Amino acid sequence: MKNFYFYNSTKVYFGKDEVNKIGKLSKEFGSNVLLVYGKSSIKKSGLYDRVNKLLKAEGINVFELGGIDPNPRIESIREGGNLCKKHSIDLVLGVGGGSVIDASKGIASAAVYDGDPWDFYSYKVESKGALPIASILTLSATGSEMNGGSVVTNLDTKEKNGWGSPYTNPKFSILDPTLTYSVSKHQTGCGIVDTLTHVYEFYFSNEKSYLNDRICEAIMKTVIHYGPIALEDPNNYEARANLMFSSTLALNGLTGFSKDFEGFNHITEHVLSAYYDIAHGDGLSILAPHWMKHILNEDNIDKFYEFAVNVWGITPDEDKAYVAAQGISSVFSFYRSLEMPLSLKDVGIIDPDFDELAAKSVKRETLGRFVKLTKEDVKDILIFSK
Amino acid sequence: MKNFYFYNSTKVYFGKDEVNKIGKLSKEFGSNVLLVYGKSSIKKSGLYDRVNKLLKAEGINVFELGGIDPNPRIESIREGGNLCKKHSIDLVLGVGGGSVIDASKGIASAAVYDGDPWDFYSYKVESKGALPIASILTLSATGSEMNGGSVVTNLDTKEKNGWGSPYTNPKFSILDPTLTYSVSKHQTGCGIVDTLTHVYEFYFSNEKSYLNDRICEAIMKTVIHYGPIALEDPNNYEARANLMFSSTLALNGLTGFSKDFEGFNHITEHVLSAYYDIAHGDGLSILAPHWMKHILNEDNIDKFYEFAVNVWGITPDEDKAYVAAQGISSVFSFYRSLEMPLSLKDVGIIDPDFDELAAKSVKRETLGRFVKLTKEDVKDILIFSK
Repeated sequence: MKNFYFYNSTKVYFGKDEVNKIGKLSKEFGSNVLLVYGKSSIKKSGLYDRVNKLLKAEGINVFELGGIDPNPRIESIREGGNLCKKHSIDLVLGVGGGSVIDASKGIASAAVYDGDPWDFYSYKVESKGALPIASILTLSATGSEMNGGSVVTNLDTKEKNGWGSPYTNPKFSILDPTLTYSVSKHQTGCGIVDTLTHVYEFYFSNEKSYLNDRICEAIMKTVIHYGPIALEDPNNYEARANLMFSSTLALNGLTGFSKDFEGFNHITEHVLSAYYDIAHGDGLSILAPHWMKHILNEDNIDKFYEFAVNVWGITPDEDKAYVAAQGISSVFSFYRSLEMPLSLKDVGIIDPDFDELAAKSVKRETLGRFVKLTKEDVKDILIFSK
Repeated sequence: MKNFYFYNSTKVYFGKDEVNKIGKLSKEFGSNVLLVYGKSSIKKSGLYDRVNKLLKAEGINVFELGGIDPNPRIESIREGGNLCKKHSIDLVLGVGGGSVIDASKGIASAAVYDGDPWDFYSYKVESKGALPIASILTLSATGSEMNGGSVVTNLDTKEKNGWGSPYTNPKFSILDPTLTYSVSKHQTGCGIVDTLTHVYEFYFSNEKSYLNDRICEAIMKTVIHYGPIALEDPNNYEARANLMFSSTLALNGLTGFSKDFEGFNHITEHVLSAYYDIAHGDGLSILAPHWMKHILNEDNIDKFYEFAVNVWGITPDEDKAYVAAQGISSVFSFYRSLEMPLSLKDVGIIDPDFDELAAKSVKRETLGRFVKLTKEDVKDILIFSK
């Protein structure tokens, strides 16, 4: 087990009606709140009115920036940053899914920076601070509600880059599973795949850490158990609650305390969605199973065997290769059962430039830590995904 | 899944040689440190000299209170509190196991209180604050390094009471597994049992929480896997590291985020060790298996079945009662394999006053949440443990 630092500064309020605390919790940071949200869903569901009312009851001035895209654009970050400066914002409150919370982090950082916020996402400058950030989560997927990461897209440069700073963990996040009842089947599936992939990024690692692996398996088993239940019965509280907190724990430090982030799946998916603006979960659903199939070899067969037996319940057998293959096959079947895409064609990507996508993914000599992939490897994975 | 608040303010620095950070980390709180420790072990191991040197290199004035007992006494808390007042202490640094860290919490609270610190432990007054606390852990067991709890014994009143406040989480804790290499076989066994029992206290619950249960199982499996390895090979880093972080996670909020603390094992053990000054782990080792045997019934058989299959690897079978019994039987065998006591006689308690012990344990009508135990139940468990 390698050395690590373990701490998370975000306070989580979890459960039905915890949203009612938003006024008092926000007021602790000041009287000017920038409410950041996406398209129309929080207006339709009544959450927009409810939050506004709760904030105003505490005498808070609510400014707002709506219309954040599912792959949030750098333009929104710039606009939000300027709004914060103009209105002396005390707290940036993201109400929505990962995209909205990611955008809130960029905005809060842009608010205290004189240059262009793309400087952060292109790793040109280090952030020196950020306004306080908070979130009300409406979609279980990215884990952004309890970490400092933020992914933003620049359509001009065809880049979708992940970035974070010590200042961008939300001060608090409210997680009410009932707010995810209205999430569509497809978005629920995307969230399930995103959560699982966050776990894969740490689980598939050459760093040995028994406890870390068992915790990863605990989260994967929960998601696999409750995913189909939530799709079948969207208002099932236990299913929504278990999926929600699983998505939070999958990327809050717990799944990777003594591991390094593998990288392939997220990096290559960011390239795909920067080019084609597909949903992050769709991209991951296409890539991860094909990646597993491509990398399985004699050196890592024990890991895939463990994955098959401990996560997918495959019966242990002396024929390790058979068991390992059954595990990977279970990933394909599970994603198919969620009606998630398994090929580029499924999301309308026909005859892409495989060389260009591979080159954009593999910026150094190789990509990934568990198995180091060359451009040729990534191209192969993409071709098998077509 | 019931509503919950999830946050832990302690920063953990985990791994070999992280102790070298103690000077700089302590200095952030000021220049006067009270070093709290137990008997001679940290002097023998050289840790005492090492920590002193690191603190002094930062210009820190080190005051000290050694000799903390394994079941820390209220007298030590009083003495430490007075030392803090006298020397304007900025940070109370516990170097040792759970007893030393528990004592540090009491001392840091006594330091800012004018009355007798037993007032906290007897629930007469609420603490209004505490000096900053930090720890260097040398024994994997209690989880005190990442929570606010503190257990202190009053021999005058024959009470061993647990208490905590919002101010008593260590600001930071350093967890270096190599510091536990010298822990004796018996103390290692006690730590293993203590960690497992912390998990039982949440796992055995009527609150349904799938994710919570899977995480509990992850920790129990790790401890069961590495316990025997650490006993066999005390300098095995992976074993010591996995046991150490398991003990931290077992009582830092992760195992019980959506559960209530069961209570029987810890409360009755506190009575036992207040009367007989036995090691906490020994008391738990005697009680827990007998408790399981006593409470197993038709209503909770599913939980014990899950425990048997998921934690102890018992083969699933239609005969649930048989599988459940096999699980409990595994607890007995595992504790025996660790050479831990399974009866009161094993720790020299002969012919105790069962009625008195039961009455001290069950202060209200019943004790425990998973199965509500009357005084008669507790007496029966104790008699079967004799």
